Amino acid sequence: MSTSTETSPAAEAAALSEFDRDTAVTLREAGVYDAELSAGWTIIHAVNGGYLLALLGRALGDHLPHPDPFTISAHYLTPSVPGPAVIRTETVRTGRTLSTGTASLYQYAEDGTEVERIRVLASYGDLGALPDDVRTSAVPPAFAPIEQCFSAADNPAPAIPGSSAIADRLDLRLDPSCVGWAIGAPSGKGEMRAWFGLADGREPDALSLLLAVDALPPTSFELGLKGWTPTVELTTHVRCRPAPGPLRVSITTRNLAGGFLEEDAEVWDSADRLVAQSRQLARAPRG
Amino acid sequence: MSTSTETSPAAEAAALSEFDRDTAVTLREAGVYDAELSAGWTIIHAVNGGYLLALLGRALGDHLPHPDPFTISAHYLTPSVPGPAVIRTETVRTGRTLSTGTASLYQYAEDGTEVERIRVLASYGDLGALPDDVRTSAVPPAFAPIEQCFSAADNPAPAIPGSSAIADRLDLRLDPSCVGWAIGAPSGKGEMRAWFGLADGREPDALSLLLAVDALPPTSFELGLKGWTPTVELTTHVRCRPAPGPLRVSITTRNLAGGFLEEDAEVWDSADRLVAQSRQLARAPRG
Repeated sequence: MSTSTETSPAAEAAALSEFDRDTAVTLREAGVYDAELSAGWTIIHAVNGGYLLALLGRALGDHLPHPDPFTISAHYLTPSVPGPAVIRTETVRTGRTLSTGTASLYQYAEDGTEVERIRVLASYGDLGALPDDVRTSAVPPAFAPIEQCFSAADNPAPAIPGSSAIADRLDLRLDPSCVGWAIGAPSGKGEMRAWFGLADGREPDALSLLLAVDALPPTSFELGLKGWTPTVELTTHVRCRPAPGPLRVSITTRNLAGGFLEEDAEVWDSADRLVAQSRQLARAPRG
Repeated sequence: MSTSTETSPAAEAAALSEFDRDTAVTLREAGVYDAELSAGWTIIHAVNGGYLLALLGRALGDHLPHPDPFTISAHYLTPSVPGPAVIRTETVRTGRTLSTGTASLYQYAEDGTEVERIRVLASYGDLGALPDDVRTSAVPPAFAPIEQCFSAADNPAPAIPGSSAIADRLDLRLDPSCVGWAIGAPSGKGEMRAWFGLADGREPDALSLLLAVDALPPTSFELGLKGWTPTVELTTHVRCRPAPGPLRVSITTRNLAGGFLEEDAEVWDSADRLVAQSRQLARAPRG
């Protein structure tokens, strides 16, 4: 038994990135996974929806015969809180290039009964098996160079009071054109753009894209609205395995009406590939 | 018993529009609906995905306590064919303003076993209960006046060979900028725009919007690709009850890569309201 090429379980755990550690799931029985929702990915007291989606996405990728989420829709039912959770997955159909499944995340009420937090329906494939053809007409939106963009540390008086633990997990650099809200001068445009990375340097992959599409401040801040924009539904298409390096995330809202708004996100990698597209329906803040 | 204000069942059936007649569902038992997929909504031999979504949407609207689809995601598993089908619905959660449910459409294999065609996850609300605030920054794309647009009857040599029964159900008028494909001169742009109505004059509502988002020729035709673009997943947000009159439907593809493409649709009503937004992931044609 060689010790030189082997890593101890403790060393392996220590080597895990924060993202991989906090989205880990443990198989309890066929289709059922235990998880621990980390307090490290909260904004005020709410657990970030993109982090939760990545956790569900990891469980589904383990359960289904294909590894990567090609299209994944999540309906957010009740607010998740840090602590234990269980994920129940089901295979809907298995095909040659795509398989489809559902996943539900539950937490426990005081009396021990399960309360469903999120329901997911997704089709998975293998990004590594896709042909190389690219006929994309989309071009990346304008981003200021990363060194001219603003991190949370640049903001002496955060517009969001209270703790935002997720800010310590992310290396988020907001484009100067989208930071007016932080100094009380929102642009009035429903746009938010940022360079996105994980603070510990973990490189992007299909799962971290599920986090990236829902990790920026809401576009409603730049529309001059304060307060919460709870997600009703978020659908993400992962179109390509991202190249190493920082991602660029651009989010746009065009239709704020009737108490709801959509957020359209696109994610570009360092190789200028459009690697993910998402849209969510959220409740508009009252303010 | 008054007969003057009463309509006989036969007269009611005769008064039903083609769309309402062909998307009708019959409650068999709690949560289970029988349906008949009509051959009247086929393209070649495939049953149109928007028609199927409307049929599933009607069953879910009957099952859930809220009437209107606010956000509905459909994963298309196996090709549907005209004939009998059964829809099984389940309530995921019931809230004050939104309720969430799933629906599955099955058809029967030769040995009588059920084969799942489509799985849907949706959140329903009441469009009539929404506040009137509209802060939409989106503007309708340019459409030529309806009298300058092209109907199927204007095309002497249809590019799609074979019967397309759905063409008789719809009053579709394609914008002149998007009809190059029909004469062998596609624009090269991933755009398709059309005025949309039902041929028998039935006015639009939330359910017919589910048809409208997937009833135009595929954008891939204008990209110079022939052949089929089977839908993997289609998510639609219904944002407003449409005003009477023709709809304008605009569909855009920006990212054709790795054998897949997205189609983004927006639907505008006669009152210039953005009434629906949708995105689908589809397999790109080989051609």
